Amino acid sequence: MHHYRFTCTKCCKNYVPNALNLRCEDCQGTLSVQYKFPTEQMSSFNYGEGISMPIPIPSPSDLVSLGEGNTPVLKLSKISNQLDLEIYAKLEFMNPTGSFKDRGTSMMISALRSMGVSEIVEDSSGNAGASVAAYSSKAEIKAHIFAPSSAPDTKLNQIKVYGSVLHSIDGSRDKTTEAAEAFAKEKKAIYASHNLSPFFIEGTKSFGYEIFNDFGKEIPENIIVPVGNGSLFLGIWKAITELDTQNLIGTKPSLHCIQAVNVNPIASPVPWNISQIAPTIAGGIAVGTPPRKSEVRKVLEESNGFANSVTEESIKEWQINLAKYEGIFCEPTSAAAFAGLENLVNRNRIDKAKRVLIPVTGSGLKDAFPE
Amino acid sequence: MHHYRFTCTKCCKNYVPNALNLRCEDCQGTLSVQYKFPTEQMSSFNYGEGISMPIPIPSPSDLVSLGEGNTPVLKLSKISNQLDLEIYAKLEFMNPTGSFKDRGTSMMISALRSMGVSEIVEDSSGNAGASVAAYSSKAEIKAHIFAPSSAPDTKLNQIKVYGSVLHSIDGSRDKTTEAAEAFAKEKKAIYASHNLSPFFIEGTKSFGYEIFNDFGKEIPENIIVPVGNGSLFLGIWKAITELDTQNLIGTKPSLHCIQAVNVNPIASPVPWNISQIAPTIAGGIAVGTPPRKSEVRKVLEESNGFANSVTEESIKEWQINLAKYEGIFCEPTSAAAFAGLENLVNRNRIDKAKRVLIPVTGSGLKDAFPE
Repeated sequence: MHHYRFTCTKCCKNYVPNALNLRCEDCQGTLSVQYKFPTEQMSSFNYGEGISMPIPIPSPSDLVSLGEGNTPVLKLSKISNQLDLEIYAKLEFMNPTGSFKDRGTSMMISALRSMGVSEIVEDSSGNAGASVAAYSSKAEIKAHIFAPSSAPDTKLNQIKVYGSVLHSIDGSRDKTTEAAEAFAKEKKAIYASHNLSPFFIEGTKSFGYEIFNDFGKEIPENIIVPVGNGSLFLGIWKAITELDTQNLIGTKPSLHCIQAVNVNPIASPVPWNISQIAPTIAGGIAVGTPPRKSEVRKVLEESNGFANSVTEESIKEWQINLAKYEGIFCEPTSAAAFAGLENLVNRNRIDKAKRVLIPVTGSGLKDAFPE
Repeated sequence: MHHYRFTCTKCCKNYVPNALNLRCEDCQGTLSVQYKFPTEQMSSFNYGEGISMPIPIPSPSDLVSLGEGNTPVLKLSKISNQLDLEIYAKLEFMNPTGSFKDRGTSMMISALRSMGVSEIVEDSSGNAGASVAAYSSKAEIKAHIFAPSSAPDTKLNQIKVYGSVLHSIDGSRDKTTEAAEAFAKEKKAIYASHNLSPFFIEGTKSFGYEIFNDFGKEIPENIIVPVGNGSLFLGIWKAITELDTQNLIGTKPSLHCIQAVNVNPIASPVPWNISQIAPTIAGGIAVGTPPRKSEVRKVLEESNGFANSVTEESIKEWQINLAKYEGIFCEPTSAAAFAGLENLVNRNRIDKAKRVLIPVTGSGLKDAFPE
């Protein structure tokens, strides 16, 4: 018997966990992990005295780890001065494959392996594909990674080097997902979608537990996250909710969601549809139909966060700013969050007396270099 | 007055520290930092109860940091089985710019800044250049980085993105050094050579203090290091010596030095001269005339370590092995250490009852991808 269940995020129907289960059978809603017992009675990671994070694997020793997490937090002095605000960055590109995805992948692959899964199918525009490929190699799981043929070469090559089978798909990002789903069905392999798997968010939530410690239990009042599928955004909020349930947290932070003007299904100020999509250099958030969109909306509301869209120009500018002034070389997707912060400051959406934390989600080394 | 002096590693002459000082005036020997007082009376980093690492900056708060160090240690289960030995890897590519150099650069830039330096010149085949560029940006120091035009594009682009001035030099690696030295002289700028600066090794020694903690004060009996200029190799040994002086260490480990057959001034079994040099994919250890060669030799002798040379074929093979079996994607230079381990095991140079630790020095993302 598992110490957790899957619950539909829409109609709340419960399911016995199963590696094949990615959506509610009744309403097609996305699923999340819900724990059955008080944390102290379950498998968990320890984050210091009295702070435990429940995990959906039989025991912490079942974790497939490549050394993910425990990323450093830096104060960005020059950018803080520039925007007249206290700004911190948590360097997620210092994860083993170069992005925050490793937190989610580590947990997803561990949970699937503990269920006896030995072959998986995944689709990704790049970072998640490389991450799933690396952890599958460590876990001795055969992985088929579907990626758009237009993804940066470095990301595609990275997938291959770990020994995964790369399926390069022409056409839109959605075509890649369709091809992966069809292949999984035909092969009777597990479709380990990092966007749909309820396990992925159970891994990204470690970010939230870490900042609780990084800041001496006083989480910054604003957290600004670039959102494509929202797995980091939702993981952070889940951590905060769990910490709150354990009565460990004072004031909850506001979570702000940043998207590119060219792909902003959540942040668009007017009703949005997929035909509005345009190319963006922020490949990690170029997601036209995020399956967990309504979950992200709910967190924005609960946390009093803002959704904001940023231009291609401002993304490029902030990628250069971060490297030039702070010595941080990130991918355009990560720079988008800083462009969003600037917008929010200019519109007086952020109280200047409060602190801001931004995850620098991915490494600049995997994308095209800025001009 | 400084709490340390520079000492010639050859003739032992002492010098008052000075940013211009890179060699002994009398004998041209390389210099090292020598502390004047017991550690507890000096500026130091704390590595837990009673464990302090002396540092050549006025106070720990003078450190220019991008979150370097504290890299994870992984047990490599599959490779351990394969070689019938207990093998651990410390993932140095998870440093902020993707290599162990960040440890040395952080300390070198901090020391120079604390001396009032505002403009520097550096030469590098790639990793150190990117590292110096990043830390100079954070420290607001203007950096001129000289690199061979043949270095991988990713490494050259990374230097530029941080806002440093890249001077791309045609011809051999030595030509790059000559050009940098001439430019520094003409410009009257500080030549901050990571190979010669005594501060660099004061940074890389943090690796040694960390493993002392990573392994519960029982450092693995064998440490296998790819050696070009030897700054990590020498830093580890300096840490071990300092821990020993503080009576904290039991048995000292053996440090083994790995080089490519094509460039092995230290590991060559026959007398070596620069005309024997041939191209190698292990760019980080392609150093024909390492200025600290005799220091490396001395440590090999003191620690009962072996020097070993590895073929291009075996380097490529181990780069793939690490990615495929352990989910670790490193640069060829790092893979060389594993090829060397295999040689040492085959020649019965390593006691199978003892543990082995290998630093995975740099990220695979910055080099050409393996075929």
